[in-house]
Amino acid sequence: MNKVIDFINTNRDRYIGELKTYLAIPSISALPEHKDDVRRAAQWTAEELTRVGLEHVRLEDTPGHPIVYGEWLHAEGAPTILFYGHYDVQPVDPLDLWETPPFEATVRDGEIYARGAADDKGQIFMHFKAIEAHMKQNGRLPVNMKVLLEGEEEVGSENLDDFIRAHKDLLAADVVVISDSPMFERGVPSICYGLRGLAYFQIDVRGSNSDLHSGSFGGALHNPAMALAQILAAMKEKNGRVRIDGFYDDVVELTEEERSAWKQLPFNEKQYQRELGAPKLHGEAGYSTLERIWARPTFEVNGLLSGFTGEGAKTVLPAVAMAKVSMRLVPNQDPDKIAEQFEAYVKKVAPKSVEVTVTRMHGGRPWITDYHNDYVQAASRAIEQGFGQKPVFNREGGSIPVVFTFQQELGLPSVLFGVGLPDENAHAPNEKLDLGNFHNGVIASAILYEEIARIARRA
Amino acid sequence: MNKVIDFINTNRDRYIGELKTYLAIPSISALPEHKDDVRRAAQWTAEELTRVGLEHVRLEDTPGHPIVYGEWLHAEGAPTILFYGHYDVQPVDPLDLWETPPFEATVRDGEIYARGAADDKGQIFMHFKAIEAHMKQNGRLPVNMKVLLEGEEEVGSENLDDFIRAHKDLLAADVVVISDSPMFERGVPSICYGLRGLAYFQIDVRGSNSDLHSGSFGGALHNPAMALAQILAAMKEKNGRVRIDGFYDDVVELTEEERSAWKQLPFNEKQYQRELGAPKLHGEAGYSTLERIWARPTFEVNGLLSGFTGEGAKTVLPAVAMAKVSMRLVPNQDPDKIAEQFEAYVKKVAPKSVEVTVTRMHGGRPWITDYHNDYVQAASRAIEQGFGQKPVFNREGGSIPVVFTFQQELGLPSVLFGVGLPDENAHAPNEKLDLGNFHNGVIASAILYEEIARIARRA
Repeated sequence: MNKVIDFINTNRDRYIGELKTYLAIPSISALPEHKDDVRRAAQWTAEELTRVGLEHVRLEDTPGHPIVYGEWLHAEGAPTILFYGHYDVQPVDPLDLWETPPFEATVRDGEIYARGAADDKGQIFMHFKAIEAHMKQNGRLPVNMKVLLEGEEEVGSENLDDFIRAHKDLLAADVVVISDSPMFERGVPSICYGLRGLAYFQIDVRGSNSDLHSGSFGGALHNPAMALAQILAAMKEKNGRVRIDGFYDDVVELTEEERSAWKQLPFNEKQYQRELGAPKLHGEAGYSTLERIWARPTFEVNGLLSGFTGEGAKTVLPAVAMAKVSMRLVPNQDPDKIAEQFEAYVKKVAPKSVEVTVTRMHGGRPWITDYHNDYVQAASRAIEQGFGQKPVFNREGGSIPVVFTFQQELGLPSVLFGVGLPDENAHAPNEKLDLGNFHNGVIASAILYEEIARIARRA
Repeated sequence: MNKVIDFINTNRDRYIGELKTYLAIPSISALPEHKDDVRRAAQWTAEELTRVGLEHVRLEDTPGHPIVYGEWLHAEGAPTILFYGHYDVQPVDPLDLWETPPFEATVRDGEIYARGAADDKGQIFMHFKAIEAHMKQNGRLPVNMKVLLEGEEEVGSENLDDFIRAHKDLLAADVVVISDSPMFERGVPSICYGLRGLAYFQIDVRGSNSDLHSGSFGGALHNPAMALAQILAAMKEKNGRVRIDGFYDDVVELTEEERSAWKQLPFNEKQYQRELGAPKLHGEAGYSTLERIWARPTFEVNGLLSGFTGEGAKTVLPAVAMAKVSMRLVPNQDPDKIAEQFEAYVKKVAPKSVEVTVTRMHGGRPWITDYHNDYVQAASRAIEQGFGQKPVFNREGGSIPVVFTFQQELGLPSVLFGVGLPDENAHAPNEKLDLGNFHNGVIASAILYEEIARIARRA
């Protein structure tokens, strides 16, 4: 193992240059005008997988963006890792808040800034380099490896579930490894054992056929932007609880063990608030901040648009108003059931004087696993060696819906081992990845393959 | 008078061509990038005033867009009309809803479509042609005429009040004539005797320093778009009443005479609703639609913006949210007092977990006059001759703040004689003006000058 680690240490600088090339491709899956860029990123990914030594590397076309697949299956008798990640990235607006251009990766103070640096190009590239180190030094991997990378994670992985269901043999494995989450905090590596799910919607409200003069018509019609505000305000109680009927029915309450373990984590609410620049933290009454973001469902407004939004004043009574909203779900909430409850509740609270349409954008199930299983423990040892300290076990507020699919369709446990940081700005301007964590992550990944190789294969 | 009317009838087609040229200048006062176009429209206006025979025509620079002034003062012993209007226009977004380009005036079915066709270039041009007809046929006007045209009406007339206060002698007159309002309905000419005022604000809500991942952070912070929705929803009761403390304190209730006169007007609520495409009319309980838009104050959301508003889904917890809001005011509400009440109420209802800023954009006072006065009655006779029927007396929901200033600073009554239509789309796509009304309006304006000439000058 030492010569693999030596190789990684020797090649540290080369990795940064290669990563910059990868981050330069604006593979924004949400924006149709970047369709070709997404494909270009897929091709770059496939070429890289071939370069590091994988076989049968290919692009698998989907109705959306392509999936990249590659494998190395010559570790007879050893377990098989299915490594999953994504090469697409979030949009970059508002562009003017970026200190350096989002697709010209820039290193400052030991961190690399670019869209995709943490989420998820930087973290999948870490595994490419771990694979490369094994192959270059030993001509082989200690485990069998299947790599599955999608280009639609940021738009709801719409075609991934179908692909998995249609390729159960191809993807058969013993464990899924994913690096698409932040560590608990700088200096505190972690393994994530729970994720929230997602139910995302667009609400469109129409009040009239066309925009009207707010003087001539104001007072006669229900202003659709006001109606939208009324609908949104009806979603939450003052104490932060969501008011959608039945919303909490399937929520699994936190165990006392979890609550007391989380209280031990080095987390300072005051500092967290200051770093985010929030006047005050705010959430569901009766829960700590970590509990609120890891184990409680929530309702968020992701976007609002209506009428005149430019500089100055325009006295318009808008014809329409739009909101993007999403709910983060926790075990055992079901996104389809939540969608029905949400639609029914919108119908119940929406004024009859406007026309309201709810569009289901996408959903993902929440996920939780027992962190005492062999694979999580193997990852714990790998991280301890790569980072010089034992990881903590945490949950994450975000969603990786495919983790649930891997469990349901392929019967596979997942190990979520991420090296981002809580302030990585994954979906915001100035996304970044700490290069020290990246480097330790390459080493820990290489060791993780060794550690998993030691686990007896499942029957 | 007959030869003046003959001239107008003979030149009907020429007027359309000239008006198209005027409407082609995109004098959008709200948008800095159109600053030069606004000036170009001012220059065109000044050249036109000179062409039709006015004297001492000039541009008066202001800190914003220029004022155009011209006069003809040789009707010794006759009253002086101060004609006021504006040559600036509203923005044109959403551009894709225009059937023909907003600055390429197009005639369809006897109506001319363009931004500014009704509000207000078309209506001030009507007076230019009435003046021209008198001058061409008689070499003189029956009254003294001062023309005052501003380029900032659509952005709150910020510099007009100062100009009026600084030029009281220049603007001294007997009556103000304004054509910047719609007639009651097609075939029902009207004179407007009351206008609502305006108090316009921007609300900015900040929840954090930067946009955040709604998964990783959702639940820990007050979502600023949700906080904005909560603030807006708190502005109105379910029954349509505004909840701002003290909002109705100074409202003059409708007289029984007005309520019963308005009930006689040919107004069909069902048809109005159908034409606007509203699922249902909605407003303050206890008032008819005409009462709601003419004589009751209201609270409108004019614009909303927050987070991700593009196609698709982005799981962002926005850092900020913005609303443009405005209140229409009725006699005797005071925009400054209302601004203070609004700011206090926002402070009262805003959650402490977000930072809220209210910016005063602009305000204008409501106005009302006695429609039995000599000038209104003169206008009534002019309209009867121009349109072949007596006008009705109505109020208007919109605001022309300067009408209050003329009353307060110059002691002048105003006659509001407009030839637009209720569906003219003044601040919306596909703004239009009926060419029949325009033509009758030129004749009625020419007669109005004659009728006013017969009124004894004030002491």
